[in-house]
Amino acid sequence: MADADGKMKDLSISETKKNKKDGTPKTAAKKPQQQKKKIEGAALIGIDVAKQDDLGEWYQQVITKGQMISYYDVAGCYILEPSSYAIWENIKDWFDTKIKTLKVRNAYFPIFISADNLEREKEHVEGFAAEVAWVTQGGKSKLEKPVAVRPTSETAMYPYFAKKIQSHRDLPLKLNQWNNVVRWEFKHPMPFIRSREFLWQEGHTAHLTKEDAGAEVMQILDWYEGVYQELLAVPVVKGTKTVNEKFPGADYTTTIEGFIPATGRGIQAATSHCLGQHFSKMFDITVEDPNAKETGKSEKIHVWQNSWGLTTRSIGVMILTHGDNRGLVIPPRVAEIQVIVIPVGVTAKTTPEAKDSLYGKVKAFADDLASVGVRVETDYREGYSPGWKFNDWELKGIPLRIEFGPKDAEKGVVTTSRRDIDNKDEARGEIKIEDLKERIPQLLEQIQSDMFNRADKAFRDHRVQLTDWEQFVPTLNDKNVVLVPHCEGDKCEDEVKEKSARKALGDDVAEDSKAPAMGAKSLCIPFDQPEGIKEGETKCINPDCSNFAKAWVLFGRSY
Amino acid sequence: MADADGKMKDLSISETKKNKKDGTPKTAAKKPQQQKKKIEGAALIGIDVAKQDDLGEWYQQVITKGQMISYYDVAGCYILEPSSYAIWENIKDWFDTKIKTLKVRNAYFPIFISADNLEREKEHVEGFAAEVAWVTQGGKSKLEKPVAVRPTSETAMYPYFAKKIQSHRDLPLKLNQWNNVVRWEFKHPMPFIRSREFLWQEGHTAHLTKEDAGAEVMQILDWYEGVYQELLAVPVVKGTKTVNEKFPGADYTTTIEGFIPATGRGIQAATSHCLGQHFSKMFDITVEDPNAKETGKSEKIHVWQNSWGLTTRSIGVMILTHGDNRGLVIPPRVAEIQVIVIPVGVTAKTTPEAKDSLYGKVKAFADDLASVGVRVETDYREGYSPGWKFNDWELKGIPLRIEFGPKDAEKGVVTTSRRDIDNKDEARGEIKIEDLKERIPQLLEQIQSDMFNRADKAFRDHRVQLTDWEQFVPTLNDKNVVLVPHCEGDKCEDEVKEKSARKALGDDVAEDSKAPAMGAKSLCIPFDQPEGIKEGETKCINPDCSNFAKAWVLFGRSY
Repeated sequence: MADADGKMKDLSISETKKNKKDGTPKTAAKKPQQQKKKIEGAALIGIDVAKQDDLGEWYQQVITKGQMISYYDVAGCYILEPSSYAIWENIKDWFDTKIKTLKVRNAYFPIFISADNLEREKEHVEGFAAEVAWVTQGGKSKLEKPVAVRPTSETAMYPYFAKKIQSHRDLPLKLNQWNNVVRWEFKHPMPFIRSREFLWQEGHTAHLTKEDAGAEVMQILDWYEGVYQELLAVPVVKGTKTVNEKFPGADYTTTIEGFIPATGRGIQAATSHCLGQHFSKMFDITVEDPNAKETGKSEKIHVWQNSWGLTTRSIGVMILTHGDNRGLVIPPRVAEIQVIVIPVGVTAKTTPEAKDSLYGKVKAFADDLASVGVRVETDYREGYSPGWKFNDWELKGIPLRIEFGPKDAEKGVVTTSRRDIDNKDEARGEIKIEDLKERIPQLLEQIQSDMFNRADKAFRDHRVQLTDWEQFVPTLNDKNVVLVPHCEGDKCEDEVKEKSARKALGDDVAEDSKAPAMGAKSLCIPFDQPEGIKEGETKCINPDCSNFAKAWVLFGRSY
Repeated sequence: MADADGKMKDLSISETKKNKKDGTPKTAAKKPQQQKKKIEGAALIGIDVAKQDDLGEWYQQVITKGQMISYYDVAGCYILEPSSYAIWENIKDWFDTKIKTLKVRNAYFPIFISADNLEREKEHVEGFAAEVAWVTQGGKSKLEKPVAVRPTSETAMYPYFAKKIQSHRDLPLKLNQWNNVVRWEFKHPMPFIRSREFLWQEGHTAHLTKEDAGAEVMQILDWYEGVYQELLAVPVVKGTKTVNEKFPGADYTTTIEGFIPATGRGIQAATSHCLGQHFSKMFDITVEDPNAKETGKSEKIHVWQNSWGLTTRSIGVMILTHGDNRGLVIPPRVAEIQVIVIPVGVTAKTTPEAKDSLYGKVKAFADDLASVGVRVETDYREGYSPGWKFNDWELKGIPLRIEFGPKDAEKGVVTTSRRDIDNKDEARGEIKIEDLKERIPQLLEQIQSDMFNRADKAFRDHRVQLTDWEQFVPTLNDKNVVLVPHCEGDKCEDEVKEKSARKALGDDVAEDSKAPAMGAKSLCIPFDQPEGIKEGETKCINPDCSNFAKAWVLFGRSY
């Protein structure tokens, strides 16, 4: 929540000033009277509050100590440190390669948008007006006309579309940009999840027909699912947004919806919109009907447009999903470092020759791994014990650790330890040195799929199908999202939200004091619809709604 | 020039509105009474004013018709179209790979900077204050404290450096970001060359010693030279900036300086700064002296910092250097499309089978070329003559055209045409189809080096060494930059600038009415110093200066 002048209840300012030399940010949210259960055996450098006890505090520690985020002195803005930016670059490479197969071309449009353009599509501007940042001054001079910092680029790009699209031969026009956008939100900020500036890609395309536009919307959504499921190991549900939740100015919005098990809240993961002809009408983007000669009519066609975006929020969802009480857990496919090699068993008694020999072997197999594309680093730091190093790299979430000491060398093996498995014995393994080039990539893929499968199970277990309103709020309170028959009416949806908000429940209901106060909103209408809704027969779940249900709709408290 | 409210004499606004459907922007700068010499034989789709007659008009046509830039309705901001953005991506890939060998890591810092931080280094803020854009409003609310849109990120990043650098073990710290920056300039804007927003990379590093910092400054400068000379085929001179021209807050600035033959003006191409300890003192970035135990003193050391940046201006320098009266000429190494294949000799009489056969062969060798990494496209568009297509791709600057018709097919050859050679006969060649995979990459490299050599000769021919002040201004007026003995005094430099400005010359002097009115400033003190300056003997070139020359300094009118 913020006061009118735009200050957010954010930890950035005080933190960077007060703890400048400390390096371990403390949180203002942690009140002195709160006694947190300390994690038993937690190392000094590690996380000192359990994920299940205080997710907010845990998240702050994990992202800062794990070196994903550093706080900043402008509220709602955060520094993406190299480890998190590397994840973004991996996402970028994967997705950029995909869209290039559709002949989408990258471009760059200015960050500033004139008020005139911003305001051309009514629904769109209403959707964004409350959170647009305005530049009103350049140097010492006041600008005659303030310019908006882009919250999204539809209105920056579509005058260009109008200029470039002169004939149906100019279609489809497919552009994308990787850039920063600003939404001056006043809600409580959360690194990655809700920040005033974030990075994303925004694709903007124009097509001759509704069908062509629609096909692309779905193709992009599939790739967004790929980013989450295949790269970040985070399960999502694909669907369509209800009218209440669609993008301002879109015909319809398709979405992938994620889930944070620790809070039982849903989270919008990425959206792919069919804008229809709303913007092409406002921006006058037309072509002559290519079939005009045949039909005898010379008719203008307004082009069909899409826009689609994926943001750095994805990294936050990944952290919230996989992180544990030892810190980050990063899926191998996006990790900057996939394997950390730590020499062990070097003591005061070790001769320099023995040490050189050991380190030489480490270097040799690390080079081998690098040669087959494994992102591997070695940790030869002096003055730190192996145990300290283990904790350090676990905190940073490196998917796989290789330990190598004199005993391993004798046996011609390395000891491996998977980050994603909590039980130490189960996490460990042994691989022959000559097999490393083959086995390590396999093991990384195993970690990747195991991480996804665990998260997928958690989401499935917490996606509860029900038809009885009495179960609606209790099920939400048990950290689930719910799949319910709904009429898809926007007012009914507002009612459901209001009825499921905490204020309607009384203070004694929620055991978990951190349960969100907000009500449940519709997350999506999943493409994958179970049986059971009969037209004109199945009632909407809202007892005060007299309409019949149109579909199973996923509702949840959400970010 | 701009009036106080920040409006620039810019063509963007009127252009996009008036010629929305035309697609060929006209320029407000072209007054009706001006009669431009039309280029003989210029195609309708091409450039209709010669580079030598009106560089400004030519540039506008080349960048818009060549689809590098589209105008925009916020003054001083431009759209980077896919063809120019692809050049930027090629530069990015090359340079990013280089800096990663130095273990520089990419990160992302917020676009907004608090006034507190921005103002911490006095010299720095003075250098940028006049052109900082300020966000003062978020949604409907006025911000309590306005935030600056980054003009550069020293002050955004260095509080983070102070936090992260706790010990000499944390050094060196090397970060880089690829981002957008904003400088709300009031000078006449010029796409790529001077715009209010531009893209760049900014590297920021911290080192334990002055020597380590200095070595990196030079390494980076070498790579900047590489971007210009090896990728963009643009020659540059390496050197150090004088005190007058160094980066605000730097110890010293090294630079590569380019040259635009058409105007005889120098242009700053990229800079690599050693910031010394200026910022580390202001931001309190210190470590304990690692040698403290030996020396017995426990002393704090302020770290040594560098920053270095390369911008999208580089694309503008490339265009101004190589473009000709047929349009853009893009060096092969950065071109989005290196080879365009155009089937020829298909007439109304051609049977469908013959056409299919011809196109099949085109596809086959184009695929072959792609398989060896050549960026190749084919142009099968119906309804356009080969001649029209030739002009179209020449305008876009594609380095090499392959023509392929029935006669070529019979002989088993293709006809090639180099974009960089004006004489049609000299530009043409013939290559056997079976040799294409070997010969085309070679030919592209030949084009690349020929382009560089021609530009290098032009720069050498226009870099005139002189010692006599009487020749100074006339030599500048002949479109040269000059290498002169100079005392390196900042006031003397101001005097030289004033004396070489047009107002000091009288109106009748400059034949070329487009000669810039500004005086010559120092471009750099080249690393490569000719013989001839004797300490305490050689006079400074400025007749009113009583000091001895310290070095040969490159002066020129500049962008």
